[in-house]
Amino acid sequence: MAPFVYKDFEHYKDERAALINRDRSPSLRPDFAQVLSEIETKADEVVRKIRTAEAASIWGAKYSDIVHPFPGMEFLTGRSIILKTKIFDILTKARAAMSSACALLHVHLDATLNPKLLLEFGLEEPAMHVCVSERLTSANIFTTLPEFRALPKDDWVLANSTCGLTDKDYVPNTWVQIRKARDTFDTSMGGPECFDQWVERALSISSTEAYRTHNTVAKVEYFSTLKFQGLVLFTPIWRKYIREFLRSSVEDQISYIEVRVVFAPEYMVGEDGAQDVPHREWLLIFDQVQKELKAKLERQGREDDFVGARIIYTALRFIPIDELEWHFQDCIALKKEFPHLIAGFDIAGPEDNLPPLSHYAEALLRFREQQKEALVDIPLILHAGETCGDGTFADMNLFDAILLGSERIGHGFSLVKHPKLMEICKERGILIEMCPISNEVLRPTASMPMHPLPILMNNGIPLAISSDDPGIFGNTGLSFDMYQVLVSSEVTGLTALRELARNSLKYSTLEREDKKRALESWERRWEIFVQGIVDTFVDANHAV
Amino acid sequence: MAPFVYKDFEHYKDERAALINRDRSPSLRPDFAQVLSEIETKADEVVRKIRTAEAASIWGAKYSDIVHPFPGMEFLTGRSIILKTKIFDILTKARAAMSSACALLHVHLDATLNPKLLLEFGLEEPAMHVCVSERLTSANIFTTLPEFRALPKDDWVLANSTCGLTDKDYVPNTWVQIRKARDTFDTSMGGPECFDQWVERALSISSTEAYRTHNTVAKVEYFSTLKFQGLVLFTPIWRKYIREFLRSSVEDQISYIEVRVVFAPEYMVGEDGAQDVPHREWLLIFDQVQKELKAKLERQGREDDFVGARIIYTALRFIPIDELEWHFQDCIALKKEFPHLIAGFDIAGPEDNLPPLSHYAEALLRFREQQKEALVDIPLILHAGETCGDGTFADMNLFDAILLGSERIGHGFSLVKHPKLMEICKERGILIEMCPISNEVLRPTASMPMHPLPILMNNGIPLAISSDDPGIFGNTGLSFDMYQVLVSSEVTGLTALRELARNSLKYSTLEREDKKRALESWERRWEIFVQGIVDTFVDANHAV
Repeated sequence: MAPFVYKDFEHYKDERAALINRDRSPSLRPDFAQVLSEIETKADEVVRKIRTAEAASIWGAKYSDIVHPFPGMEFLTGRSIILKTKIFDILTKARAAMSSACALLHVHLDATLNPKLLLEFGLEEPAMHVCVSERLTSANIFTTLPEFRALPKDDWVLANSTCGLTDKDYVPNTWVQIRKARDTFDTSMGGPECFDQWVERALSISSTEAYRTHNTVAKVEYFSTLKFQGLVLFTPIWRKYIREFLRSSVEDQISYIEVRVVFAPEYMVGEDGAQDVPHREWLLIFDQVQKELKAKLERQGREDDFVGARIIYTALRFIPIDELEWHFQDCIALKKEFPHLIAGFDIAGPEDNLPPLSHYAEALLRFREQQKEALVDIPLILHAGETCGDGTFADMNLFDAILLGSERIGHGFSLVKHPKLMEICKERGILIEMCPISNEVLRPTASMPMHPLPILMNNGIPLAISSDDPGIFGNTGLSFDMYQVLVSSEVTGLTALRELARNSLKYSTLEREDKKRALESWERRWEIFVQGIVDTFVDANHAV
Repeated sequence: MAPFVYKDFEHYKDERAALINRDRSPSLRPDFAQVLSEIETKADEVVRKIRTAEAASIWGAKYSDIVHPFPGMEFLTGRSIILKTKIFDILTKARAAMSSACALLHVHLDATLNPKLLLEFGLEEPAMHVCVSERLTSANIFTTLPEFRALPKDDWVLANSTCGLTDKDYVPNTWVQIRKARDTFDTSMGGPECFDQWVERALSISSTEAYRTHNTVAKVEYFSTLKFQGLVLFTPIWRKYIREFLRSSVEDQISYIEVRVVFAPEYMVGEDGAQDVPHREWLLIFDQVQKELKAKLERQGREDDFVGARIIYTALRFIPIDELEWHFQDCIALKKEFPHLIAGFDIAGPEDNLPPLSHYAEALLRFREQQKEALVDIPLILHAGETCGDGTFADMNLFDAILLGSERIGHGFSLVKHPKLMEICKERGILIEMCPISNEVLRPTASMPMHPLPILMNNGIPLAISSDDPGIFGNTGLSFDMYQVLVSSEVTGLTALRELARNSLKYSTLEREDKKRALESWERRWEIFVQGIVDTFVDANHAV
């Protein structure tokens, strides 16, 4: 092949600019400016300027408790620094003031709320109880985890007669009313406040756990998500939980949600403490709560702020095939009764340690046939490739997800290793639900600059970003994930965030008309947001 | 686009196998078995079996000093575990016994030898002196670094009359004979052995430095490489140093080397302590030493073990343009005198913090013209993209390296972000000199499973692996880097290592005939190696 030859250095520079242009996907190309409005270009410049300044001033400063801060660093360590930045203000306060919007496509309902609030909900319920496998002492408090359950009223007396979790006479595995457990918490161990800390610690991930003691996906994730269930799967809390989840999402300018709900066990615990509330009633409550919210927003003239929330029916990745078949039937029945609520079907769980999708592939093909017979359409929206493995089962799940016709892919972290699969995702418009902070806390990547997101972006693969388990990671809303993406690249700017936000609506399962409306409303708000950035920061530019 | 449709589950499985095949580059494809010999396929299976077994037995075991071991983990932490494995034995002892071969294409001469040996060389030379910027005490020994220099004989007496580095009367920045500094090292601080440890620590990177206190390319690398110079750039040590480097490389089955030598300063210190030895004499010594080694190997009937060593003339990336122009002339003059020794030209230094290639691009284009006039051909073999940055100067260096016609690319870590550049590398046969352990210790990646190497492999980009700064990292030879690549993937097997080894010769700058001979000899040895693995491990298969 002939070497590159240049007439002169100007020619070299022209060729260089052309090659950069060919290397990037349209939305990231310098000449994309041609389709950007003047005001967007200006806003993008402003944000880049602030980002560069803060990389030096805020991320370049010395902090006594953080050894080597940098933009895009480990989230659990760098979170306090993020909160100091103007860029984060733009993504939160500015977006709120100008009511921007986007969709949240990948989030697990039972890990959405912050543990503090969840504990508050628990303390409000006399039916809610807690137990431990051995009496809590200052020696075992860091390794002993609480278990929660709402008990029938008849059992409360019994529970009331027992002593607290830290009492000498505590009999392992006996239930104690959660409020009593808090009130009686040994004062020498810190009393009630220490109880709160113990529960909150158990329901979240600390930087030490994520970055030192655990340090792999499976170990970190596994130990947390399922522990939420005892608290959440109790109708009075379920109702409050969904209400708060939707409210706080709307507060962070999320206008539409597709939330994964694990439909196990078969029954939730009802108000009376009996575990007899079937899945259809879970959905009824979900529906009621979102209707209340919509009505409230409508009264405030804010109906555009919330298009709605739908559910991706989720089974767990360690169940036997016949149990999965049961879920198919359950899901089809729910879809028939609540066609507006069921958005899709998924099988979730830490891929590195659980059976691969190929194990369920034959059953999932039958699910298609069953849907045809039942005259329903439930798209697969499968987790796949949430791993840094190469050719491992978790990585190979991407082949099955795509061959099974998954309409989007949850995570797809290892997709970058597969040139042919990337081509298919691009051609078929299979969106990747990227969860940057989750990927970093659960350790497929060690920091955002090492994250493969720019590879997918440059290749023009449809992407949206999501928060995954914000209750556990502390990345409630979408602003934190946007922040991490924005500051970890010199290519990514405001216009890339625009693509990510637009994709989140465009690749949602919303019906054609709803989607059109949502996109139009999003477009209007985006223009206000961009204008707002320019108005706010260009005048005060000398302050940047 | 039509969804994937299948007649039955068999059909699904066929489509799946076909898609996997299309996704991988030929050398990694399951059907590549057709071009593998029966014995290669067997050896590959054996190695995979041992790898799987050791992932559980050796990497799954508990170690008191290593929190969460896994295959491909941080090298400086996991090195002691690697030494326990049969896979490492195969890559070292078995390769040695069967005299396998490959080329080392990316290594910096002044960081190749282990610090212990380098210190020994220093202690043998009465001219070699050391100084520190303040008297060494147990309080500052971890932060104070030694500086070395060989002095003219006239200055020795003066040096001898001074006191040691730890003496109360030590005057900052005065030279002390290195042997005297060792002998007089304060016994309350550990005496001579502690002196050795202090020097060795200064000349290498500890796991704490790499993974905690520094944690970025620039900070880690910068503080080490240049400190070797005072010891190495003294002709008696230079001679021993090159001799030992070539000897130990041949011991680790490296049959051909292209080593980067920084030609700064203009003169080396000669035997008499005067800094007056010009670059042509550096090369004369290099040539003599390798001729001696070749003669010795020939006498032993091992002439195939060492094809030779050539030099990539390297300038530093922080010099002004006019100084670079001086290097061009110097390099052309050396190429004319030693056409067999000068293999190429490079500009090196931590890319994240130094001027980008674009700064030197116009000059490098002129270098082409100068070569034409001088009737020499010195290929550019440039460092580029040794970063996890996205669109940063270091990342953008890849565009310039390619447009300037670099024949190979040193590192190319961030190449995976650039679809068009990958295409060009594939079409034009631009090999990427990947340095896995270096990338992990210097932190563009946090562990091998996160390394982008599989992306480049699946895309069929020509690759070879190299050790970069083995003296600093402790990855002497190529076996450690091969190990990390082999155990971090389920796709990569012995046959992928074959491709990496073959590439290292195929993409070297060896002349056509020499290359042909080297490849033929490599092929013969490979067959012996593969047969040896089967002979050794298939019989003892029950022991695997």
